[in-house]
Amino acid sequence: MTAFRFELLASDGTARTGIIHTPRGEIRTPAFMPVGTAATVKAMLPQSVRETGADIVLGNTYHLMLRPGAERIARLGGLHKFMNWPRPILTDSGGFQVMSLSALRKITEEGVRFQSHIDGHQEFLSPERAMEIQRLLGSDIQMVFDECPALPATHATIEKSMALSMRWAKRSRTAFDSQPDGERVGRACFGIVQGGTFADLRLRSAEALKEIGFEGYAVGGLAVGEPQSAMFETLDATVVHLPQDKPRYLMGVGKPDDIVGAVLRGIDMFDCVLPTRSGRNGQAFTFAGALNLKNARFADDAAPLEEGCNCLACRQFSRAYLHHVVKSGEIIAAMLLTWHNLAHYQRVMDGLRQAIAQSRLKDWIKAYYAARAPVDQG
Amino acid sequence: MTAFRFELLASDGTARTGIIHTPRGEIRTPAFMPVGTAATVKAMLPQSVRETGADIVLGNTYHLMLRPGAERIARLGGLHKFMNWPRPILTDSGGFQVMSLSALRKITEEGVRFQSHIDGHQEFLSPERAMEIQRLLGSDIQMVFDECPALPATHATIEKSMALSMRWAKRSRTAFDSQPDGERVGRACFGIVQGGTFADLRLRSAEALKEIGFEGYAVGGLAVGEPQSAMFETLDATVVHLPQDKPRYLMGVGKPDDIVGAVLRGIDMFDCVLPTRSGRNGQAFTFAGALNLKNARFADDAAPLEEGCNCLACRQFSRAYLHHVVKSGEIIAAMLLTWHNLAHYQRVMDGLRQAIAQSRLKDWIKAYYAARAPVDQG
Repeated sequence: MTAFRFELLASDGTARTGIIHTPRGEIRTPAFMPVGTAATVKAMLPQSVRETGADIVLGNTYHLMLRPGAERIARLGGLHKFMNWPRPILTDSGGFQVMSLSALRKITEEGVRFQSHIDGHQEFLSPERAMEIQRLLGSDIQMVFDECPALPATHATIEKSMALSMRWAKRSRTAFDSQPDGERVGRACFGIVQGGTFADLRLRSAEALKEIGFEGYAVGGLAVGEPQSAMFETLDATVVHLPQDKPRYLMGVGKPDDIVGAVLRGIDMFDCVLPTRSGRNGQAFTFAGALNLKNARFADDAAPLEEGCNCLACRQFSRAYLHHVVKSGEIIAAMLLTWHNLAHYQRVMDGLRQAIAQSRLKDWIKAYYAARAPVDQG
Repeated sequence: MTAFRFELLASDGTARTGIIHTPRGEIRTPAFMPVGTAATVKAMLPQSVRETGADIVLGNTYHLMLRPGAERIARLGGLHKFMNWPRPILTDSGGFQVMSLSALRKITEEGVRFQSHIDGHQEFLSPERAMEIQRLLGSDIQMVFDECPALPATHATIEKSMALSMRWAKRSRTAFDSQPDGERVGRACFGIVQGGTFADLRLRSAEALKEIGFEGYAVGGLAVGEPQSAMFETLDATVVHLPQDKPRYLMGVGKPDDIVGAVLRGIDMFDCVLPTRSGRNGQAFTFAGALNLKNARFADDAAPLEEGCNCLACRQFSRAYLHHVVKSGEIIAAMLLTWHNLAHYQRVMDGLRQAIAQSRLKDWIKAYYAARAPVDQG
């Protein structure tokens, strides 16, 4: 059994590239993890997700506990088998979705009581239950259960919330460590740094997590509407306190240039619904900027979506076709644009990994911005 | 350049199996043609449609003339290139859709003036324009423009409509024959027998079409709500008047057992939206009958959708997973169930072809009905 292990291959300034070794396969970092909320990366077959270059996908504790249920997935052989994705899966703990999706939440020291957004059913999540669900799913990287306060909020509010999240992080770690050896070995538990945009709170949160000890460290509570500059400043104030020898994961981020800036600041892992959601809304990411395929100027455009892209959509179809199926509301529009967008994100990650390995990240980033069209092409 | 040619390989009673040779590939008959209305077989990549065993797909003159436009598709290199389906395409002439979809139709001897169901735009279709559109699309099998009266209707109404359709068939043939040699060679023009459920009108229609002469003969005006027995009786009264050496196409049919019964009666080609539409509605066709994947009894069912089916959905996923994604409204549900349904239809066609080739069609049909579960499993 391969142990869970982070191998640092090269650094370029604060940025790093490496490999996370897991029993289910290697994860090349910096890594982008497509979001497979409800046991599917929307509009994609799992084999197509892999074809785009993904090493790992993300699943959602909150969604899967409500439907089809964690115990049911366990009976059916676990999430990997259920969704036919044999490679690594990271699951978030449900903390973020409880705050953003559910109704009638009641937070206590014990956990969160809430109503399902699907059928109004009463549900409960705690550090112990969140880790139990992730164990039942068979998740390779399990996230601690945390509280995600809405921003903006006062220092006092964020401090109180962060302190609760740190007590929950400790209980999550204990719960993870209590999982049977046969299930736990080769898997990882990641802590989540909280503290809003307050550098002093981020420091205290990072210290508290290191004191507990985790296989990886996530930065949570960002990408919730704050400007990119605030996110980067918070990263600068946070990453410096995280261990060098453990993977760092920026949760829920982001646009390609958010990712580029965060990699520059030492982040190793990302997840975001943007490439998949945008794909379902007729938007395509390219190195020249985002394209809105609804735009009539594509109606007669025989060129592929993006020259030089080797994804299925770019190999087999024209912009004119994509415009037509987007305008017609055809399912293949979501399939093809999601495919392209995930492939584009992986191309960005691949470019970043190679640039870091060759100590030319600054030049790569300069070229990355130079390639942008002067105005949005949409 | 391969000429368009129908090769009859074997007969079993009235049923036949053969190969339609075209410059774009062979079509094994009896053939089921997946419907690609708007230049996409809904929820499927073209390569996946081919993987299910399809030799040919159908496109719709009515839909494509309205969006993206026939002249535009011609500028972009034709429908095959546009939708990335290099194999044969049959296009219907728009007659049926004008009646079922458009508003404010006005039928004259010249053609049909109507309003687009998309944007209310004034449009016009005639035999000449319908054939021009099919030429612009680059269709391999072009259907004559006909009038499709609503049923039930009186003998007098159907007779008048059929007579108009026969005059339009003659004009369609003339228009097809006027297409430039370089485009027309290797392509086919099919006539459409009309006449409702009246045997005398079907006879007169078939005779009129044979007098004109076509590369193939379709039976139109059925599968519009009449009972299966009326459809079969009409087929019995019609097929006997069609040439032995030309393919026969029953338009818009149907459920698997409609197809089985029609093959028994000498039909060679079929198209229907049922496998694709049902796939988007959570319904799966199997040899044991139709399954409704919304049904809660599948929630814990670890078995594949259909034992013995080699389609991607059956190879890679459980009924429990399909139930989950159908209930969750995920796009992958439409993708997987459409894939399975198209594969199932092709398995039925393959079974029929082999049974006819081996002169055991009656036994095959007996076994086909015996495999049905005593009650609908849905």
